[in-house]
Order: sequence, then structure tokens, then C-alpha cells
Amino acid sequence: MLTLDKIYHAAHVLKDVIRPTQPIPAPYVNKKGNVYLKPENLQLTGSFKVRGSYYKISQLSAEEKAKGVIACSAGNHAQGVALAATKNGIKSLICLPDCAPISKVEATRGYGADICLVPGVYDDAYKRAIELRDEKGYTFIHPFDDEDVIAGQGTIGLELLDQLKGIDAVIVPIGGGGLISGVAFAIKSLSPNIKVYGVQAAGAPSMKNSVEHKQIERLDAVSTIADGIAVKQPGENTFDLCSKYVDEIVTVTDDEVSSAILSLLEHQKLITEGAGAVAVAAAMFDKVPVEGKNVVCVVSGGNIDVNILDRVVKRGLLTSGRTCLLKVELLDRPGQLHQIARVIAERGANVIEMHHERTKANTNINGCFLRITMETRNFEHIAEIKEAITNAGFKIHE
Amino acid sequence: MLTLDKIYHAAHVLKDVIRPTQPIPAPYVNKKGNVYLKPENLQLTGSFKVRGSYYKISQLSAEEKAKGVIACSAGNHAQGVALAATKNGIKSLICLPDCAPISKVEATRGYGADICLVPGVYDDAYKRAIELRDEKGYTFIHPFDDEDVIAGQGTIGLELLDQLKGIDAVIVPIGGGGLISGVAFAIKSLSPNIKVYGVQAAGAPSMKNSVEHKQIERLDAVSTIADGIAVKQPGENTFDLCSKYVDEIVTVTDDEVSSAILSLLEHQKLITEGAGAVAVAAAMFDKVPVEGKNVVCVVSGGNIDVNILDRVVKRGLLTSGRTCLLKVELLDRPGQLHQIARVIAERGANVIEMHHERTKANTNINGCFLRITMETRNFEHIAEIKEAITNAGFKIHE
Repeated sequence: MLTLDKIYHAAHVLKDVIRPTQPIPAPYVNKKGNVYLKPENLQLTGSFKVRGSYYKISQLSAEEKAKGVIACSAGNHAQGVALAATKNGIKSLICLPDCAPISKVEATRGYGADICLVPGVYDDAYKRAIELRDEKGYTFIHPFDDEDVIAGQGTIGLELLDQLKGIDAVIVPIGGGGLISGVAFAIKSLSPNIKVYGVQAAGAPSMKNSVEHKQIERLDAVSTIADGIAVKQPGENTFDLCSKYVDEIVTVTDDEVSSAILSLLEHQKLITEGAGAVAVAAAMFDKVPVEGKNVVCVVSGGNIDVNILDRVVKRGLLTSGRTCLLKVELLDRPGQLHQIARVIAERGANVIEMHHERTKANTNINGCFLRITMETRNFEHIAEIKEAITNAGFKIHE
Repeated sequence: MLTLDKIYHAAHVLKDVIRPTQPIPAPYVNKKGNVYLKPENLQLTGSFKVRGSYYKISQLSAEEKAKGVIACSAGNHAQGVALAATKNGIKSLICLPDCAPISKVEATRGYGADICLVPGVYDDAYKRAIELRDEKGYTFIHPFDDEDVIAGQGTIGLELLDQLKGIDAVIVPIGGGGLISGVAFAIKSLSPNIKVYGVQAAGAPSMKNSVEHKQIERLDAVSTIADGIAVKQPGENTFDLCSKYVDEIVTVTDDEVSSAILSLLEHQKLITEGAGAVAVAAAMFDKVPVEGKNVVCVVSGGNIDVNILDRVVKRGLLTSGRTCLLKVELLDRPGQLHQIARVIAERGANVIEMHHERTKANTNINGCFLRITMETRNFEHIAEIKEAITNAGFKIHE
């Protein structure tokens, strides 16, 4: 049974280990209310996971500690367990699918874990981890469905009540449900009037479905930019705790998550991963009541894949008028490119890519298309450049 | 005369206005010592500038306040003055060159300033601001060479002494020198044993040259990714204070700054601008003694141009093996592309751009080049793909 005592005990154990991340006001998220972030992306290992893993490992018996721990994860849980084990002075073995990005493998190794790369996908790595647990007597550290892990994550709830007065609502990401179970239990036990909202990705609503249908359900497939919460089935403990203590579970789309990542990057100077940004997305797009309220979004982690970050930034450049793609019809004869280049240069845009297309069926036999990518200042600047190109006698195709 | 009293007074005035940014451990910057960040990129307006502006404006007479303030800046100072004026309940007018990015203009307007766009460059906007000051009686808020402004920035020094014990050195960016003058004065007055190092961009070493030559010198031109500290000439006050209180001034290159931005993004989940990252670059590349020491890097701001961020991220993708560019020689006949595409698909890489080049003088008359950009997992993955392409009978050109 999870108790408030256990969460207080976890807070005591974690006191000199983790960073008590300070809430940050985030006025740009939603101007209708006072929005704060609990920036666990600034936590050790870049996510909240180390809280639960550390507390869990600290509570193992001397015999269990001597044998070491094992976990299966290609993400934040792996790094949390690795660091927690190292800080407790014990061995950890992390099973990962062999397709895991080297950056995550290296980060996990960097925190002191031994790595076992398993051919296949997550499920194969999980199977191998369980085999190794049974063979070697390692303790398996579950990523969410474990009372000690939940108690560790719950320390975020205690911290928030200490750090901010007058909280009306806390918004928390849900994957397997470990984070929100701990936070909701702590907050509802101490301040039952504070609302606790859960957020899942629209492409992975396993806890939402389960709680609404009052039974644990398994999704056949999950698909979301928020890979950290792409969980097919909630845990038993977390299902019970969410059913009891969470006021409502909402979902956000990948587009909404991506806007939230971009807003946090631009306005708060914080890097967040998809799962880390879902609570912010929920506040931003009014999925939960924000108007006139003091709302805290738990930003659970910042370990975003740099390719996804690149796409989010590119999208930001396009949606803010800082990059412009144009398709201009040219006559295929000398001097045309020169003329276009002059018009663009005179308007101060910076061409970063240019591409000729000939032999398209719908082009004039003497014509061709020029695709131009340029860095621009803003939408007015783009309009000005388009006008100048048109005035110079060229046709722009959208 | 700058006094410690004045800095304490500024701290008192700023107490309920600014965020007392909490130092963050940054183990990845340099493992030889204990490195901390003072994250002023998380400050209101995304930079430290609001401290100086707010304190300066708070000290104006009722008559001066009634007339309002004026400043000239396309960057952090503009936003600092705008917010500081609004919070003091007075009007502000900001002159910007009309080529300033709309995002900065809008951010400044968003903090409540009136905007005066001046045709031309910074110097034209500055001239216009001085004209308007003389015409309308506005108070001009200097970005750095002002005692109250310096005192406001100096509150960072007081905060640091409060927040961290056992500091050996503080590393501070230098543009005009306002930030470091305040910080160095506060720290040397209270803890003279703490070293204070200044960092300039190698392409804009105006304070370094001036202090070393014991006279204010003006650079003809400045060029750096760290646009926030691209200052041609130090101020008189700041020159005196730096000469007296700063232990050493070092420089960092654009490449070093770019690596620092990338490291902070990846490991600390923080967005920094070029100027904001120079102190970190200095610690990272051992420009100052870090070994065995407790070192604080002042991260002065996070308002990076999103195009520059995009380039830094792209560079990160390339240098970490997450993006790969290949140039493959093909025979120009059907089926070649299909074969290459199959080889790549089988290795699990994701093609994001492909480009045929024909008609190159040095190509076989039946040949062409295929330029492929793909998302890859790591350098081993890239090596594996290259080997597979070579084994399939194609020639890769570097």
C-alpha cells in the first residue's frame, strides 16, 4: 500500500541526491491563467525517472544490492536506473534493443551501467532482461508499476506544495502512470482541492481508455512523437491509483506537442522531449481549465532525439517566416537565374538552397521550375520578395 | 562611484521583480572541475539585462519617469528596458534598425514598448534615439556604461555568493562590460579570493585589447556568432572597473561557442545564445583554470536566432553521426537508384534528401552522381551503410 509516509521517506532519502527543480513561470503557455513549469528536464539524467529508481534501489536488502539490478529501457528509465545504482554503489545491467540510438546507449553507459544489446525490438530486450533476472538473481526495476518507484516520483508532488502557494491544478504526463500516481497521491492526500489532470498522447491513450472503461486495457499499437509515454498497457498499481486520484485524463496530438516543444524552446529556453511537453500542450490548447487559475505543468524530461528537435526547429522557421520555400517558373535560357538572384539579394534574403527542375510534363517546353529555399526575416519580408519577383516578370507557383 | 551599497540596494529593489535564477551543476562542461551555470537565460526576457534596466529606471526622478525612457537595441537590452519600464509603470520607446528580425521587434513590443523602426543599421538607430532624447526629453538608458545599470547586473554576484559555497572562479561574458563590471565589483568586494574571468568573442576583443593596452580602443569591425557581445568599444566606467577587478580576459572562437551551445542543449536541456555560451566555451576548452576548482559560468542569455540554432543543431547531427551525406557514382541507367535505395532501406537509414547530378565534366559519360542525405543512428551505422553500398558495386566519393 502506498502511503504518504513512504513518499515523505523517499523525499528524505532523495534530499541530497536529486535536484529540487525550481518551478519557472511560463506566461507564454496560456495567458488566461498563471502557468508554471516543474522543470524535471533539468533533473539529473534529464528526466524525473532517477527519483523513483533511486528510492527503489535504496530500499533493497543488502543481499539484493550485492547481486545488482537489471532494467529494460532505451530511454529515461535506463539512465535513471544506471545513475541510481551507481550512486547507491551497486551494479546495474540495462537491456536495450540493438537498434537504440548510440547516444542513449552511451549516456546510459556513462552513468555506470553495463549494457546488454539485444537483437530485435523492445519486447525482445524485455524478455532477455527477465531471463537474466531469473538466471542471475538480479532485481528487476520496473519503470512504473512498483510502489517504491511511485513513491519516488511522488516527491515531485511534495516539492510542488512546498515551492508554490495557491496551486489550483497540476498537469502531469501519463505513460505507464508511475509519475502521476505518485504526484496525485501526494497532492490529494495533502491538498484534496488541487485538481490533478493526466495527459496522454492521442496515439497512445492506454490509461485514459482503461480508466474510462474501468478495466485495464491493452492497445495493439501506439504511435506518437512522445515516445517516452508510448505505453501499450498501464500497470495494476498505477491503474488503481489513477482511477482513484486523477480528476481527468485528456489527450494531445503530435502537432500540439510539437507546438509546445517549440514554444518552450523559444520562450522558456528549455529543451523538452515529446513526453516532457504534453502537459504544456494540454495547458496551451485549453484541454483542461486554465482561465484565472494557478496551473503547474510537470515537464517530465528533456531527452529529445536530435533529429526530432531538428524537425521541430525547421517547422518553427517555416511557421515564423524565417525560412521561405518558393517555386518560380523560369524560361530556360541564360540570365534568368542571375536576374532572380539579383532580386533576392537586393531584398536581403539569404539563399540556402536552389534547385532547377526541368522535364516536367506540365512545364512550357522552354520553361523550368526553380525551387528556392531562403532565410528570411518575417512574413512581410517574404511578401516583399514575392512581389519583387513577380514585378520582375516571373511567375510564382505555390 | 559604484559602491557595494548600491548593489545591495539594487538587489533589494529587484527582489520581487526578477527571478533569482538557481545555479545548475553542469558536469559535462569540463570533468576536471565542478562547473555550475548561473542560468540567466531563464531570467525574465531571456537575459540578465532586465536587472540593470529595472534598477536604472526605478532610480529616475518623478519628472524623468513622467517623460519616459528611450533605448537603442535590436536585442536583449531592448526587451529588458521595455519590460522594466512597463513594470515601473512608465513609457518606453525603443529604436531599432528596420532590418531587425520581426521576432525581436514583436517580443519588445510585447513587453509594452513603443517601437521606432529606423532605416539603416544600428548606428542609424542610435543616432535617431539620441535625437529623440534631445527633442522629447526622454531619458536614454545606456546598455552598459551606466552606474545604476552596472549595479543592477552586479546583483548576480551577490546572488551567487548566497547560492553557492566554496566558489573558486566566476566566468562572465564581456560585450560592453556592464555585466562583468557589476559582478566583479560585488564579488571582489566581498570575496577577493574568488577569481573573476572575462570572456570575449575572438572576433570582437575590444575590452581585452583595451585593458591589455591600458587605454580604451575601438575596433573597426566585429564578427562573431555571439552577436550580443559584438561591441566595438568598451565604456569608460566599464573599462575602469574591468581594469581594476577582472583577473583575466580570454577569447573563444565561433566554433568553440557553437560547441558550447550544442553541449548545453544536449546535456543541460538549455537554449543559449552565442553570447550566453561564451563563458561555458571558456570553461569547456580550458581557457581558464578549471581543474579541481568550483567554477561558475554565467549564462547571460538565451535569445538565439532560430536560424543560428538550426545551424548548430545541424552541425550536431553531423558531428554525432545522426545525419550522413554521401556522394555515390552511378551509371545513368534504370534500376541504379532502386538498388541504392534498397541497400539503404535494408540498413534502416531514413533518406531525407536525394539529388542527381549529371553533366559534370569529370563524370563518366554514362555516369552521374547521387547525393544522398539520410538520418542515421551513429557512425558505426554509417560505416555499415557505406560498406553495403560499396559491396553492391557502387563507388562512394568523399
